[in-house]
Amino acid sequence: MQKAIRQLTSLGLVESRPGVGTFVRAAPQPRPADLSWQTASLGAPQARLSVLSSTHRAAVPDAIALHSGYPSQDLLPGRLVRAALARASRSEVALARSPVAGLPDLQAWFAGQVAAGAPVGVTPPSARDVLVIAGSQSGLSSIFRALVGRGAPLLIESPTYWGALLAAEQAGVTLVPIPTGPDGPDPDDVERALSATGARAFYAQPSFANPTGTQWSPQTSRAVLDAVRAHGAFLVEDDWAHDLGIEADPQPLVRLDDDGHVIYLRSLTKSVSPALRVAAVIARGPARARILADRAAESMYVSGVLQAAALDVVTQPGWRSHLRVLRQNLRTRRDLLLDSLREHAPQVSVEHVPPGGLNLWVRLPDGTDSDQLVRECEVQRLLVAPGNEWFPAEPSGPYLRLNYSAAPAEQLSAAGEVLGRALRTVL
Amino acid sequence: MQKAIRQLTSLGLVESRPGVGTFVRAAPQPRPADLSWQTASLGAPQARLSVLSSTHRAAVPDAIALHSGYPSQDLLPGRLVRAALARASRSEVALARSPVAGLPDLQAWFAGQVAAGAPVGVTPPSARDVLVIAGSQSGLSSIFRALVGRGAPLLIESPTYWGALLAAEQAGVTLVPIPTGPDGPDPDDVERALSATGARAFYAQPSFANPTGTQWSPQTSRAVLDAVRAHGAFLVEDDWAHDLGIEADPQPLVRLDDDGHVIYLRSLTKSVSPALRVAAVIARGPARARILADRAAESMYVSGVLQAAALDVVTQPGWRSHLRVLRQNLRTRRDLLLDSLREHAPQVSVEHVPPGGLNLWVRLPDGTDSDQLVRECEVQRLLVAPGNEWFPAEPSGPYLRLNYSAAPAEQLSAAGEVLGRALRTVL
Repeated sequence: MQKAIRQLTSLGLVESRPGVGTFVRAAPQPRPADLSWQTASLGAPQARLSVLSSTHRAAVPDAIALHSGYPSQDLLPGRLVRAALARASRSEVALARSPVAGLPDLQAWFAGQVAAGAPVGVTPPSARDVLVIAGSQSGLSSIFRALVGRGAPLLIESPTYWGALLAAEQAGVTLVPIPTGPDGPDPDDVERALSATGARAFYAQPSFANPTGTQWSPQTSRAVLDAVRAHGAFLVEDDWAHDLGIEADPQPLVRLDDDGHVIYLRSLTKSVSPALRVAAVIARGPARARILADRAAESMYVSGVLQAAALDVVTQPGWRSHLRVLRQNLRTRRDLLLDSLREHAPQVSVEHVPPGGLNLWVRLPDGTDSDQLVRECEVQRLLVAPGNEWFPAEPSGPYLRLNYSAAPAEQLSAAGEVLGRALRTVL
Repeated sequence: MQKAIRQLTSLGLVESRPGVGTFVRAAPQPRPADLSWQTASLGAPQARLSVLSSTHRAAVPDAIALHSGYPSQDLLPGRLVRAALARASRSEVALARSPVAGLPDLQAWFAGQVAAGAPVGVTPPSARDVLVIAGSQSGLSSIFRALVGRGAPLLIESPTYWGALLAAEQAGVTLVPIPTGPDGPDPDDVERALSATGARAFYAQPSFANPTGTQWSPQTSRAVLDAVRAHGAFLVEDDWAHDLGIEADPQPLVRLDDDGHVIYLRSLTKSVSPALRVAAVIARGPARARILADRAAESMYVSGVLQAAALDVVTQPGWRSHLRVLRQNLRTRRDLLLDSLREHAPQVSVEHVPPGGLNLWVRLPDGTDSDQLVRECEVQRLLVAPGNEWFPAEPSGPYLRLNYSAAPAEQLSAAGEVLGRALRTVL
């Protein structure tokens, strides 16, 4: 009884008057507040940030959901994650504050991951070059603010991750799009753009880029790194899909860098669990100091529970076997969706079979209104994301991004059918 | 054996060459990297952000640590936190993505906390006005960026929370300091500053301000709210110490507001656990939309594990009893430190006994070099924080902030002795 009253009170439904009794509160008046004064006070926004991309739409019941950016739960190491969280709940981290730059053991793990791939003669980053952050989105915001700054130019692949476009818009940087193909961007384009704009940074995803899934060739990697070095610039390398290789392994450029030109982002959100939002920025020298200062002002520190649990997961023997199974599963699902598209939606083309990542980047017939197609698909219970959101400028053509890791295998076979039918409706 | 080799490999100490064997890696060369090129690339910083305040110094072994901003672990609801995290590890949130604005039940809880205190006739905020954030520091950054913006004026109490000063500096707002006393700021000062600067926001801590511990009088609260309303401005109310009352209960101004003038921040970090970094911003109308957009660009969403665990803790029957015991403990420790100062450090004065919060704000004799005193205290194994860090401009006098909740009771009695001795050394 007392518990019930406490709950009702905390919800504002009843009120206790000491010595008098407990009363049902007057029903809240539905008078709509007049908030129009805020419009004058706030003025026009510096940037019109779009809160949600289509990838964050809630799933529709019974729909095939290929729109989100996350793998389905059965591709996550659920048992490891639950055990790690349970251990963290019993450990010291549950009641302690973490250092600003992260738990030292987790910093060392992230640094070791890079060091393991560094060629002889290159000094790999050390644990103290690692800043643990709560998901790579916070890293993007801080890097763009701290290293580029409002009004300054930032080179960016086109198409590229929409979250990076959002962070760039928030930071107020001026985007310089660099088209990217199956081998990555043309190094001459990068060179020209660095010369022409004086940009000091290039944001890129050399391994299994979102949305295209492409991996830069070794030649491209070396040439871009040379161009960046020659211009005294930074390469912001977003290695979001490090654990999501299918035919290939990621070859992060950070391994080749020992003079602080590569700012490296590695996230565990997609491969460990979206609830363990843990990522790292690796940066050296003044750049590291400036990013750290921005992170401290922005969030002070990351929950030690999440850090300890993430480290626990990736240092279990089960993690390696999980990654092996994940690779098989990603291949199976990617190929199921490809087959289904070839059979039932021959109007679309997949210009490049991604060697890793979570997505197919699908070219639609010229003239397709991709937003209309997305709506038509939704009517037919298939959720997909329109390609426009991945372009920093006008899209170079009509595309869809299809996440093959987000739905169970049997739905993937059906997805092509629905897409083919929807295309016939809108064309 | 295999596990050992895997660990060594992941730390970069050995390398495996398939078909050949496993080798100890060449020792990393200690060649110091030349990062001086970054200095030209980065240019001078827009703001010199100080990464760490003295409150984040690591504790010295065997020292009495009164410098930090957090209560000691024995004042936290440890059993509730561990049980809540264990439950979260078994629940659905462990593998799921949270909505951008937070878990709906937690949004409802935060809204209910305000609604429970709203007078009849005032429409309280609803669950959808609540944005869950990962600690109030992120809220401050977003609010200052989204509602004030670079170069625009922001009224701020003096002294005030150093983290708010840091967030304001990062956002590039121009600070307009308003002196604050035992009843809060003088409403005439607020009125004058709003008129003179055209500022559209005032950041304040009406309940148990950090560092002074003061609570605004009801008259001050009403008059400031009137001034803010009259100027079409926002009051950013940081209710950081909501759960930390001693003689008084917090009386948040947000309860009196139904036209969106109060942007309300409530954190659970200090009362639940520093590892459950969960807080909320309550805002309505266009202001809410603009803050939400900034949060999405900055961090996408907050770990559902932390949100679910925090909600679990504050809805347990044990939470209420914990808060009752906490109140007693805070009173005991505050009074122990006060007594110790009166007996052993009569040179200092505590102008105002705080009715809540975690800190004593201690005035030092005129002419004391507070940095020198802090160093002398540290030599004598007492960690304290110099008052300067809480002032947006020149300090109005030499102060220390002493956190009475951070050390065990027996150390508090000794703290006054050490401080008295250190003062005699430096004066």
